[in-house]
Amino acid sequence: MIVLFTDFGLNDPYVGQMHAVFAREAPGVPVIDLFHSVPAFNIRAGAYLLPAYARDFPPGTVFVCVVDPGVGSARRPVMLQADQRWYVGPDNGLFEMVRRRATEYECRVIHWRPPQLSASFHGRDLFAPVAARLTRGELPDSEPVSHYPERRSTESMLARGELPDSARADVSWPEDLAEIIHIDHYGNCISGLRAESVPTTQAVRAGGEVLKYARVFSEVPPGAAFWYENANGLVEIAVNGGSVAARLGLRPGDPLTLIQP
Amino acid sequence: MIVLFTDFGLNDPYVGQMHAVFAREAPGVPVIDLFHSVPAFNIRAGAYLLPAYARDFPPGTVFVCVVDPGVGSARRPVMLQADQRWYVGPDNGLFEMVRRRATEYECRVIHWRPPQLSASFHGRDLFAPVAARLTRGELPDSEPVSHYPERRSTESMLARGELPDSARADVSWPEDLAEIIHIDHYGNCISGLRAESVPTTQAVRAGGEVLKYARVFSEVPPGAAFWYENANGLVEIAVNGGSVAARLGLRPGDPLTLIQP
Amino acid sequence: MIVLFTDFGLNDPYVGQMHAVFAREAPGVPVIDLFHSVPAFNIRAGAYLLPAYARDFPPGTVFVCVVDPGVGSARRPVMLQADQRWYVGPDNGLFEMVRRRATEYECRVIHWRPPQLSASFHGRDLFAPVAARLTRGELPDSEPVSHYPERRSTESMLARGELPDSARADVSWPEDLAEIIHIDHYGNCISGLRAESVPTTQAVRAGGEVLKYARVFSEVPPGAAFWYENANGLVEIAVNGGSVAARLGLRPGDPLTLIQP
Repeated sequence: MIVLFTDFGLNDPYVGQMHAVFAREAPGVPVIDLFHSVPAFNIRAGAYLLPAYARDFPPGTVFVCVVDPGVGSARRPVMLQADQRWYVGPDNGLFEMVRRRATEYECRVIHWRPPQLSASFHGRDLFAPVAARLTRGELPDSEPVSHYPERRSTESMLARGELPDSARADVSWPEDLAEIIHIDHYGNCISGLRAESVPTTQAVRAGGEVLKYARVFSEVPPGAAFWYENANGLVEIAVNGGSVAARLGLRPGDPLTLIQP
Repeated sequence: MIVLFTDFGLNDPYVGQMHAVFAREAPGVPVIDLFHSVPAFNIRAGAYLLPAYARDFPPGTVFVCVVDPGVGSARRPVMLQADQRWYVGPDNGLFEMVRRRATEYECRVIHWRPPQLSASFHGRDLFAPVAARLTRGELPDSEPVSHYPERRSTESMLARGELPDSARADVSWPEDLAEIIHIDHYGNCISGLRAESVPTTQAVRAGGEVLKYARVFSEVPPGAAFWYENANGLVEIAVNGGSVAARLGLRPGDPLTLIQP
Repeated sequence: MIVLFTDFGLNDPYVGQMHAVFAREAPGVPVIDLFHSVPAFNIRAGAYLLPAYARDFPPGTVFVCVVDPGVGSARRPVMLQADQRWYVGPDNGLFEMVRRRATEYECRVIHWRPPQLSASFHGRDLFAPVAARLTRGELPDSEPVSHYPERRSTESMLARGELPDSARADVSWPEDLAEIIHIDHYGNCISGLRAESVPTTQAVRAGGEVLKYARVFSEVPPGAAFWYENANGLVEIAVNGGSVAARLGLRPGDPLTLIQP
């Protein structure tokens, strides 16, 4: 199974062009449009959403993940094998939380190149064909890398005569991210906090309001705001029958604060 | 064939997560994303749209329908067999107009449960697996119910020591709904009125304007507003080459008034 | 392979209803949602986008293209065979640039009709079934037309006793269109100019600003605006890490001006 996770949105030809590659190069393999709404260019938000959305997929799944503002630069294309799943995409930090939470993983830099590689759409030209090959049991030309993601200090780079690489990932991120990383269609605000790490006795402050835990929408009165563990294991805040984002004026990137009981 | 009808929108992982269930549990069965734009939480709008959008599908089709603000409450999961099609979803009124218009139907409450059932996403965890089983010719654990949808008076509930159930459906709805229930991409306004019940000699008042019937867009001058029978059998108002919603300031829920000729 | 190219958007049942036709009438044939965001009713924008988005598809592909404000009028349904690909849709100019750029082509007017043809949704009722038949190796009832697209002068029509046909296409369009024809999810503005016809020494003026060429986003500083050849061969303007449409207040239809070096 191939699973797509991008910041492409759905209004452009990009997703369809990737599907066309799969139809030709991995015929008969199911392709799932899991998520195309990572906030544009926001590698860090994608990094925290990916393991939450990926966790239910079976071994052997190939994820193609594209949040790639550095496309066309020196950033490396990689394929990460983690807990028997493949993740194909740019080496820019997008796979950081998958990697950290994996029981075992290996990262390979991709040397394979297509006959024609556009400067700006490696999702279609490089990552999709590599994913198709993986589902066919082939291992595209690649080699293991010892450091993943690539982290080099500015000093070490200058010492080697390299210019500091603006595409290099800074992934000094926390284990859980107390921040709104996606607002869904209903106005529910999804955070980068794993619910398993937050006792239900704790409250959450967002947009100046303090929200208590409830198991599910129907446990609070219509119009009431609360936090709960969403169906992907993340802390999410919501209003029963309404939009918590509209009510509290929340936007992606806004902080959530945990309040001790 | 499995057909999805929800209020999920397309910007979130919910639709993809349901597709992933079908890819695993009903491999090779076509899955159609028919409609994910039921107004959020609006069971009644969904109830009138569903039979219009479902009517062209062949016998054997399994519809998975999720407009489910009461998820996690006592509302029952059901599967309705009506005119040789299955409708799987919450017992909250969403299937009311399908049921009323069916030549024959049977409703079954679903007892089957998955190993893991989230509190808030029965579409993925319960309804999708049940639909997959139906396409495989299996009948998940369930039993016929005599009253569908569940209707209990507050008095009878209190008499039995039950608290009135806020998730219980009130479905005292008219046969046709003279109201805008969806505004499409072009700004056309779709009503809950079946066109077969409205003579073409009648006019429609909406947003303070009176609109006459035309068979099709090209029968009126560019910029003119009219009503017509849309390709799904519903009364729809439109402007040739423009947006009637923008022109008349219309929103879902606004009334249409039929004017006798 | 069947490829969809329309102005339907994704919020309505129209795309799903077409997929249902393909699932029944061309089972097993991959169907790609390439693009549903042609600006509504904008035949000309669609005409310039189509060949750019279609060029990478293999021989034998059947494109179903619906930007059809004249549906239900006298405009002819056609199927154009161009460079071993089929294009099925209305004869209203939508295929004009594909035709002009084709090495060889033949256009056929479609006489085949379904048992039930709605007045307003030929995409579902006529074009989709015709496309399904083409993928099965059948040639639906049709005949070659000598003039495509249909062009008749008002004088000649009046001389033959015909009323001038408002659905008749005026396709006196330039070879390349120096205009914004689509704004993508990131705010990048896509023009109807083929990049191969614009030397990279030229600059582009848009929204009062002059933008120079860069190969790719990462070649300019964050926040800088530039033009480049996008992955579909068109001139596109963009901001590294931002939205050029928001920054310069651009909208579809706005002109781009080429500036000689």
